[in-house]
Amino acid sequence: MSYFRKAINAMTAYVPGEQPAPGTKVVKLNTNENPYPPSPAAMEVLRGFDGDLLRRYPHPYAEAFRAAAAEVLGVDSTWILPGNGSDDLLTMLLRSLAEPGRRVVYPMPTYVLYRTLAQIQDAEVVEVPFDDDYSLPVDALADAGGALTLVASPNSPSGTPAPNAQLAELAERLGGVLAIDEAYVDFADETALDLVRRFDNVIVLRTLSKSYSLAGLRLGFGVGNPALLDGLAKVKDSYNVSALACAVGAAAMRDQEHKDANIARVRASRARLAGDLTALGFTVWPSQANFLLVRPPAGGAQALYEGLKARGILVRYFKQPRLDDTLRITVGADDHNAALVGALREMMGD
Amino acid sequence: MSYFRKAINAMTAYVPGEQPAPGTKVVKLNTNENPYPPSPAAMEVLRGFDGDLLRRYPHPYAEAFRAAAAEVLGVDSTWILPGNGSDDLLTMLLRSLAEPGRRVVYPMPTYVLYRTLAQIQDAEVVEVPFDDDYSLPVDALADAGGALTLVASPNSPSGTPAPNAQLAELAERLGGVLAIDEAYVDFADETALDLVRRFDNVIVLRTLSKSYSLAGLRLGFGVGNPALLDGLAKVKDSYNVSALACAVGAAAMRDQEHKDANIARVRASRARLAGDLTALGFTVWPSQANFLLVRPPAGGAQALYEGLKARGILVRYFKQPRLDDTLRITVGADDHNAALVGALREMMGD
Repeated sequence: MSYFRKAINAMTAYVPGEQPAPGTKVVKLNTNENPYPPSPAAMEVLRGFDGDLLRRYPHPYAEAFRAAAAEVLGVDSTWILPGNGSDDLLTMLLRSLAEPGRRVVYPMPTYVLYRTLAQIQDAEVVEVPFDDDYSLPVDALADAGGALTLVASPNSPSGTPAPNAQLAELAERLGGVLAIDEAYVDFADETALDLVRRFDNVIVLRTLSKSYSLAGLRLGFGVGNPALLDGLAKVKDSYNVSALACAVGAAAMRDQEHKDANIARVRASRARLAGDLTALGFTVWPSQANFLLVRPPAGGAQALYEGLKARGILVRYFKQPRLDDTLRITVGADDHNAALVGALREMMGD
Repeated sequence: MSYFRKAINAMTAYVPGEQPAPGTKVVKLNTNENPYPPSPAAMEVLRGFDGDLLRRYPHPYAEAFRAAAAEVLGVDSTWILPGNGSDDLLTMLLRSLAEPGRRVVYPMPTYVLYRTLAQIQDAEVVEVPFDDDYSLPVDALADAGGALTLVASPNSPSGTPAPNAQLAELAERLGGVLAIDEAYVDFADETALDLVRRFDNVIVLRTLSKSYSLAGLRLGFGVGNPALLDGLAKVKDSYNVSALACAVGAAAMRDQEHKDANIARVRASRARLAGDLTALGFTVWPSQANFLLVRPPAGGAQALYEGLKARGILVRYFKQPRLDDTLRITVGADDHNAALVGALREMMGD
C-alpha cells in the first residue's frame, strides 16, 4: 500500500545531470553551466552581505532583484515574477494551469522536466514530435488545445530557436497560455520578449543559471502581464527567493557588461567546437544555446558517452527515443572543448 | 475568461506578515523572526564562498547540509530531505498526497498556509476546531481519515505543543501520513523526532528560519523514513536548495552552541514578556514557541494592533474567526519587548 497519489506512484522522478563532488577533477560539459565565473560585483555583494537580512524573511517578490531586472529588460517591475530558478516558474505554471482533463502540450524532444511536472498534475500530456530539423510544429501545437503550451527557445537539447513570427502565430491561435522558456536566450540572436506585450497569454521564462554563471544561486523569473503573474503567484511559496539570491542576483543583473563579455566568449567557442566536431564527421545541429546536439558519424553515442566519462569528461546522453544516437555537449572553455575533441578523436581512431 | 484552473480562481493567495523595507526603523514582532544574529561561523562561510560553486548547479539533495543535520539529529542522512524553507516541504507533502477525493486534515486555528496549499490541490479539507485551551483533538483528527494530517507543534498562533503520547496515538490510528510541523520546536521542551522511527507514516518538519536566525536564507528539512522521503522527492524542484543555503546552513547546523545560547535568551525573554502582559490583564496562552498568543482584557485587539503599528511596532493580527480578539506577538530582544509593553500600557490607559 502506498500513501501517495496514484499519479505519484506511476511516475519516475526527474533525474538531473550528474554533479561530481566539489573538487573532483573533471571536464564538465553535461549540464550547460557557464565556464566563466559570476560577476565580481555580484560576488562583492555576497561577501559583504548583512547578517541582519538573513535573520529576517526576504521580500515575497524579491523586490530589489525585480527592480534590477525590470530596468534591464525595459518593463515595469509588476511584469516580473522571480522564482527559485526558472524551474520554480515552470512548477507554478503547471500547478496553476494543469489538472486532469486539461492538456499540457509541448514539442518533443525537449526539456524532460515538462513531462515530469505534467505527470505530477495528472494532466493530459500531448507531445508533438519535432521533425529532424527541429523546426517548430506550429499547426500541430496550436491544434492540440493546450491549457498550457511550452516551447523552449532555444530548445534543449537541440539548441535550435523558434522564430518569433511562429511563436506569435502560435500565441494568437492558442486558447490557453504559451510559456516560452528562454533559459538559453542570452546565447541566441533573438528574444521573444516583445510577445508578452502583444499577447496576454504569453509568459517568457528566464534564468540566471546559464548566462550569468549563477546555477548554484537558484534564481529565475517570468515576464508577463500582471494578471497572468497574479494567478501564478497564488501557487508560489510565500518566500520562494532567498535574500541572498535577491541581492546577488540584482547585482549580477546590473553587471550586463560582465555577462555580455562571457556570452561573446561562449558564442565564439561554440563556433569553434561546432567546426571541430563537424570536421570529425559529427552531425551538428545549428545551435543558438551554450551547448551542441551532435550525432556521431558511425553511431555508438552511448559508447562515446561512457568512454568520455572514463576519461574524466562528462557530456549528456539521453537514453530515450530520438536522442539515443546523439550527445548533448555543453560549450565550455576552450581548453575543455579541446580536451573533449582530442578524446573523441582518439576514441574514434582518427 | 480565465486561463487558470477553477481551484486557483476560487482561492485567495496566502498573505505573509508585513515586511517593512530594509532599514526602516520598526519594532518587528510580527513574523516570529529571531532577534539575534545568525552564527558567526555561518557568516564566515558566506563571506568566503567560492564563486565556482555558484557557477555550478548545487547538489540536488544539499548533501553537505544533510550530512550536518544528520549528525546533529543522530539519524542517517537518507532520513533527511532538505527544502527551500520548510514551506517547500509542506508543498511537497500537499502535491504528492492531496487531490480531489483525498482529505487534508488539521486542527484550527493553525498555520494558514495548510489551507492555501490544500486549496491549490483541490483536496477535501477537514478543519477540526481546537478547544480554547488548544489541546490536540486526537479523536476528531483520527476519525477524519486524512490522506495527510498536519499538526504544528508547537502550534502557531497559539504556541501550545502537542504531547508526544497524543501524536503517537494519532500516528497509530491514521491510515495516511502525519506531518508534525516543528518549525518552533527548538524553543520547546520536547520534540516528536523519535516518532519517525516508530511510524512509517510520520514526517517531522524543521526550519532554520527561527531558531537559527536564517529566515532570509530559505532552508528547512523533513525527517522521515527514506521510502516516505522518496515519494516527496518526486515532486521537489530538481535543485530546490541553493549552494549558498547548503553551505551556510551546514555551518549554522554545526554551531549548536550559538543556536542554544540564543534560544535560552528567547525563552527567558518569553517568560518575562508573558509576565508583563499578564500583569496588564492579558490572557496569555502557555507558549513553547518564540511568540505569544494573547487576548486583551477589554477586547479591541484590532485597535491595539493598529495603535501599535502607528507607534512603529508590528505585531500579527489575524482577522479570522477565533483569532480576531487576539494578537500574536513575537518574542523579541528585551528592549523591543519593553517598548511593546510600554506602548500597550499607554494605549490601555494603565
